[in-house]
Amino acid sequence: MSLLVVGSVALDSVETPFGKADEVIGGSANYFSASASHQGPVQLVGVVGSDYPVEKLEPLKARGVDFTGLEHAEGESFRWRGRYRHDLNSAETLETRLGVFSHFRPKLPEAFRDAEFVFLANIDPRLQLDVLRQVRQPKLVACDTMNFWIESRRADLLELLGKVDLITLNDGEARQLTEQANLVQAARWILDRGPRTVLIKKGEHGAFMFTRESVFFAPAYPLESVFDPTGAGDSFAGGFMGWLARTRDLSDANLRRAVVLGSAMGSFVVEGFSITRLLEISRTDIERRVADFHRLVTFDQALDT
Amino acid sequence: MSLLVVGSVALDSVETPFGKADEVIGGSANYFSASASHQGPVQLVGVVGSDYPVEKLEPLKARGVDFTGLEHAEGESFRWRGRYRHDLNSAETLETRLGVFSHFRPKLPEAFRDAEFVFLANIDPRLQLDVLRQVRQPKLVACDTMNFWIESRRADLLELLGKVDLITLNDGEARQLTEQANLVQAARWILDRGPRTVLIKKGEHGAFMFTRESVFFAPAYPLESVFDPTGAGDSFAGGFMGWLARTRDLSDANLRRAVVLGSAMGSFVVEGFSITRLLEISRTDIERRVADFHRLVTFDQALDT
Repeated sequence: MSLLVVGSVALDSVETPFGKADEVIGGSANYFSASASHQGPVQLVGVVGSDYPVEKLEPLKARGVDFTGLEHAEGESFRWRGRYRHDLNSAETLETRLGVFSHFRPKLPEAFRDAEFVFLANIDPRLQLDVLRQVRQPKLVACDTMNFWIESRRADLLELLGKVDLITLNDGEARQLTEQANLVQAARWILDRGPRTVLIKKGEHGAFMFTRESVFFAPAYPLESVFDPTGAGDSFAGGFMGWLARTRDLSDANLRRAVVLGSAMGSFVVEGFSITRLLEISRTDIERRVADFHRLVTFDQALDT
Repeated sequence: MSLLVVGSVALDSVETPFGKADEVIGGSANYFSASASHQGPVQLVGVVGSDYPVEKLEPLKARGVDFTGLEHAEGESFRWRGRYRHDLNSAETLETRLGVFSHFRPKLPEAFRDAEFVFLANIDPRLQLDVLRQVRQPKLVACDTMNFWIESRRADLLELLGKVDLITLNDGEARQLTEQANLVQAARWILDRGPRTVLIKKGEHGAFMFTRESVFFAPAYPLESVFDPTGAGDSFAGGFMGWLARTRDLSDANLRRAVVLGSAMGSFVVEGFSITRLLEISRTDIERRVADFHRLVTFDQALDT
């Protein structure tokens, strides 16, 4: 398999009702890679400043994440500081310092240009388009986005939609992008503009996968304690894309499995700060969680009495 | 089967982004009965004032709803007037006139006291307890409640919890009752106080069923157009209880089927004003919707490659 992610490599400082973490590994590309690395190798493209504690990335390297594409720039690394209140539903951003990330121009190492599976994490759609010009013949390209780009880079985002196979975005973003309050209509709006698959993430309320032919829904796992929700979406994407890259099977049945695997990875990452839990869990833990998901939704549809 | 519901018989005036309805059939007992009547006969206990257009209940009678327990009191009927905004997520109550409902004291006709399945819809917990004293040997008693009673009748509600087999409530109410932000912990709190089964309804985000042994989740069906959300919760309860009363099987597998049937009925009722859609649909429509639910969540858990 060859799986490429282009996104942020950051330092997060997070406060939740259960504790605090200072300057821990964060950023979409790190969460994605930590999650996807359970399925196979990952190629990462991102940027860090001269102050980034690169030794903290060693556990990811040991798991098969290739940092050849990590640019080391002069200046400060991307830092995010946020807080979650009691309900853990939404992050309150206290500070964002983009640092070297604000001048990030992704440059793919030659070896990465043959990636078959590509995840364009949440960065400027112009940069996402730029990455697409650098990859040769990907089997599947997925992108993420956010409210900021939907507002400020709408035309570029629409151009991108015409060039990707799949988009992941949360329900609020789907409504904002499409100006459709109804999620089914929002998904159709997006499907009409290019992607064959739309993944709408609803956080603690699960995720929908819409294709032209079918709808699939996976709940979020009902955890007894959510410790820190940061990175759930990127870990979801990592599990999803990692599974597809490993199996190279784009059938509806396998896409469904990928969504569940993504949900499982999302349910692990929120059990601890940063990528801690993703580094701890084993294949058996993942298989058990997938089986738990199966039990959670399984019913016998026979209505004969 | 014998299935009893005690609740409100009201007249609703509703405004949604898609239209208006004036003085249409509403109230928890009506929605519940219209839904449950697809599975078998229903005994209804409630009260109307002298102004209630009882002829509008004829279609329900024709479907096997027994109105022997409907008290006709002097005065005005219960009226609710509400509005839903664009997102349809929460009703804005414009006016509530309790009328004769404020003096409602449920009196079960002799024949109803042998009901095997009992649904205590959302009324004063003191009245719900009073109904329990009138039924002889029910096989399963379920109750619903709301924020108003959680605030004003907490002691009675806790007493009721010790006497019912099942409670349905929405996620906000579960958090309010238990003072637990986490739904798994909230469910456990309730299970520790009596009920063997807790159904937590999350509206458009689906429903959880918690027992001491298992957790089941059914999504809300992703409808392309939700017309009027009024009555979704009571129609859900009607489908759920109707199925149990019809099958008289309280196994985990059958409870799961009941939840899905409830979700199906909830997904139908919101497609029109009042109980209109529940009167239109056929057994085939219901079976198709249940099959749709099955397709929506089904995945093959095998992760071998």
